[in-house]
Amino acid sequence: MDVTELVEGVLAGDRRAVARAISLVEDGAPELPELSAGIYSRTGRAATIGLTGAPGVGKSTLAGELVRAVRARDERIAVLAVDPTSPFTGGALLGDRVRMQEHATDPGVFIRSMATRGHLGGMALAAPEAVRILDAAGHDHVIVETVGVGQAEVDVAAATDTTVVVLAPGAGDAVQMAKAGILEVADVFVVNKGDRDGAGETARDLRQMLHMGVARDWSPPVLTTTATSRQGVDELWSAVAAHREHLAAGGGLEAKRRQRLRREVESLAAERFRVRVAASFDDAPSLADDLAARRVDPYRAAVILGETATARD
Amino acid sequence: MDVTELVEGVLAGDRRAVARAISLVEDGAPELPELSAGIYSRTGRAATIGLTGAPGVGKSTLAGELVRAVRARDERIAVLAVDPTSPFTGGALLGDRVRMQEHATDPGVFIRSMATRGHLGGMALAAPEAVRILDAAGHDHVIVETVGVGQAEVDVAAATDTTVVVLAPGAGDAVQMAKAGILEVADVFVVNKGDRDGAGETARDLRQMLHMGVARDWSPPVLTTTATSRQGVDELWSAVAAHREHLAAGGGLEAKRRQRLRREVESLAAERFRVRVAASFDDAPSLADDLAARRVDPYRAAVILGETATARD
Repeated sequence: MDVTELVEGVLAGDRRAVARAISLVEDGAPELPELSAGIYSRTGRAATIGLTGAPGVGKSTLAGELVRAVRARDERIAVLAVDPTSPFTGGALLGDRVRMQEHATDPGVFIRSMATRGHLGGMALAAPEAVRILDAAGHDHVIVETVGVGQAEVDVAAATDTTVVVLAPGAGDAVQMAKAGILEVADVFVVNKGDRDGAGETARDLRQMLHMGVARDWSPPVLTTTATSRQGVDELWSAVAAHREHLAAGGGLEAKRRQRLRREVESLAAERFRVRVAASFDDAPSLADDLAARRVDPYRAAVILGETATARD
Repeated sequence: MDVTELVEGVLAGDRRAVARAISLVEDGAPELPELSAGIYSRTGRAATIGLTGAPGVGKSTLAGELVRAVRARDERIAVLAVDPTSPFTGGALLGDRVRMQEHATDPGVFIRSMATRGHLGGMALAAPEAVRILDAAGHDHVIVETVGVGQAEVDVAAATDTTVVVLAPGAGDAVQMAKAGILEVADVFVVNKGDRDGAGETARDLRQMLHMGVARDWSPPVLTTTATSRQGVDELWSAVAAHREHLAAGGGLEAKRRQRLRREVESLAAERFRVRVAASFDDAPSLADDLAARRVDPYRAAVILGETATARD
């Protein structure tokens, strides 16, 4: 399948083409610029939702329930689960996506785990490109689920229209959340496993912490869900929709997307430059020796290499 | 204090100078290249240890106990706790560093939280520069503690000679760990809060998971500690020392450090280029409009901006 056919397949919503296109993103394939150019004009329709939280809080179960809620209204939805790549697993782990298996044969649902080995800039740059493919393929909603609770995972989840942060009772208090830097990127908070001890306390702590923060024009609601018994999932979906309406009404959606695109393009340009710098490094073994022997410091080496890379044809 | 005086202060081990130098790193100050050049030839002596794990597993308590173990042998040690910056906290959180307060007046111990607002490339580039400052100031050991369990935090902790990954019983199973991509970067595993239910099970799961992985020339030991009662801390210190001897004996330490430096320099050069790209973006408002209107796709925009940035004087 050449790129032109692949683009046509993606735009027609063909599942095999979509899967193949996302594999190209995973691998950082040379066809990416052409693929990107082919689909870009057909993007921007999907509502995107980021879902982040520590391992084990029930994100995948919650994503499965959000899929069910969307399907009840007969809209199309994709779930992209972004995992760091681990040699222990040989790529993205599909283990707990088993809970979404019931949707696997539904043609209105596309579920995909994505690892990021090979893509320049890792998941921060791979995820938005994969989201555009799912958007161009005609999904009304795209959920981006990240594993882990660090800065990179939060950044990826936050590169969506509406960011949902999921916690479990007792899995770190609100101060720990603030330290992970996630309080300020969340548009909606969910305390999942709401039937467990401490759920009410976790929600209360969170609300208090939010009151201490900088006032924003949108006050993130704190919801309680029990995804395994579908408690609170409709309310979560309503909160996501309300945030989206808030964004659209205030012109914030367009501004947020422009800002996101700008950052993405800057990162893409920087990563392309990194490849040239690496090549310059290969051409200058004495610089590596000078660095190791502490004759040239890292900043100076970066300036030298940057100049060499800039001068490369 | 000008940079020359600052460099002299750092090299003399003056605490105020060290604190000021790390603040410059946090802020991404324009003096950094000069500071870096001034101290670099005096680095490379310290043994560096990364300490990572989810919030709440007891990393800071464990770090405090490692400090105690080092001080019993009358060696100097620094602890650098790298936090993402949060507007909710106005910078690095010192909250749970309170547990290390007993060391605050010990001249052989330097403890510092670092946020990374301002530094190009965030904590991935700020941390190694701060570590070099602590190294040049004459600390025999530098512990880098990261908050969170994501890819970025793991990368920062792994940019040390010996990476220690800390878990608590029940805080996510071994499969979750593999998903977070941390199994393969750890040189030593610690199941802390070893007096809690499930500690033995967590350690066993972890060992099984490690057996499934790619064989390495160093088999990471899995230790159990109870930092609050100092159980297992001496064994942890011995394991860290054993890993270091293993590295030094096989020539791996030098190779690991060269590889790390190379990646750091490439990232520094790429981040410097990002600044030029951002300036080119400001000079080309029509490109932002074309992007938003989906007339130019992100890859194409990155190429255009990269070329403009390369051509800038």
